[in-house]
Amino acid sequence: MSTAVVLLSGGLDSYTAAAILQRDGFDVCALTVLYGQRHVREIESARGVAHALGVRQRLEVRVDLAAIGGSALTTDSPVPKDRTMDAAVIPSTYVPARNTVFLSLALAWAEVLDARDIAIGANALDYSGYPDCRPDYLAAFERLAALATRAGVEGGRFRIHAPLLHMGKAEIIRTGLSLGLDYGLTHSCYDPDAAGRPCGRCDSCVLRAKGFAEAGVADPLRP
Amino acid sequence: MSTAVVLLSGGLDSYTAAAILQRDGFDVCALTVLYGQRHVREIESARGVAHALGVRQRLEVRVDLAAIGGSALTTDSPVPKDRTMDAAVIPSTYVPARNTVFLSLALAWAEVLDARDIAIGANALDYSGYPDCRPDYLAAFERLAALATRAGVEGGRFRIHAPLLHMGKAEIIRTGLSLGLDYGLTHSCYDPDAAGRPCGRCDSCVLRAKGFAEAGVADPLRP
Repeated sequence: MSTAVVLLSGGLDSYTAAAILQRDGFDVCALTVLYGQRHVREIESARGVAHALGVRQRLEVRVDLAAIGGSALTTDSPVPKDRTMDAAVIPSTYVPARNTVFLSLALAWAEVLDARDIAIGANALDYSGYPDCRPDYLAAFERLAALATRAGVEGGRFRIHAPLLHMGKAEIIRTGLSLGLDYGLTHSCYDPDAAGRPCGRCDSCVLRAKGFAEAGVADPLRP
Repeated sequence: MSTAVVLLSGGLDSYTAAAILQRDGFDVCALTVLYGQRHVREIESARGVAHALGVRQRLEVRVDLAAIGGSALTTDSPVPKDRTMDAAVIPSTYVPARNTVFLSLALAWAEVLDARDIAIGANALDYSGYPDCRPDYLAAFERLAALATRAGVEGGRFRIHAPLLHMGKAEIIRTGLSLGLDYGLTHSCYDPDAAGRPCGRCDSCVLRAKGFAEAGVADPLRP
């Protein structure tokens, strides 16, 4: 059984990506990056989701992206609401080089675990337009990984799996439900209230609501 | 005057790389990554070196690579001593994916500063054989950077500068001295004693001593 390092944020996408890797026969190890996101709710969801998946190993790594700033997700800038999404416009919730930092950490851990498979819940269809969720970006990271590590230079070949890349949100949700996932454990909102309840108006809430509506099922987070 | 983000470790190489970028007309901003290295002496040197260079801005970013492990530099494994260096053998002081993590953070900060130039003191001649110091690796990161960021996707072109890449240690030292650098401020040893004095026997000490000897000058750290 091959080991795969899966980036697990506590959101709906990465939870589904991890479950797909398990379905495909991988022994999933979950990496959660604590990058200075404003809401600890997200990290609690990552823990709950990892537990529900029954992953063999779970690791949390702290990296202080808030020190670098440049995003509404790591600073006090307001999260945009009720935005018309357009893949050509990158919103202020974009975190500079975030997926590159995340994949680098996943690559480091994969090398330590002697794993060659890394998965990320990136999605290039119903998404906010972030550059580091696009297919050419992920292919470039895979090429880099071969040169960046001892394992790569010694002949190992790293694969970056992005099983949701060409799926719409509704398809992601349907797939997850067919795998028995409990989306009530997840957290998507960029700007929850003090009790952790989703705002319903940020990109992430809007995409999630659209996905559940198109899938024809109720979101367990909105009873 | 273009801004360049330079990775500054407190070692001899990155200090020289930063000075070369300044000589070439860049406004250098220094990024020091606190990655769980065992010796705080290294970080103190990075601060001293940045001060001596008079950099406009300095940032320390913490990332917990010790949680990932896999290296003698981030765990309690012994640092190899009196080793015969061979570029084909990657030693236990290799930190999995370290330069990828460092360059990702540099890329993130460069994007926030609206800079397009990033420099690293990587060196592929007198070095320990780390894969992520080689020219093809750095070229692959440059290709990734264009796809990884908002700035890249919007047409900006990031350049990864590695001015020491094809220099031997003696040439690096001679160049630095010609630029007025004080190598007494630096720290190279992987395994200093409690007082911060270099061991003289790790790869980093051996390469440094060889460089000073070949340059025909005394190392200010060894009076």
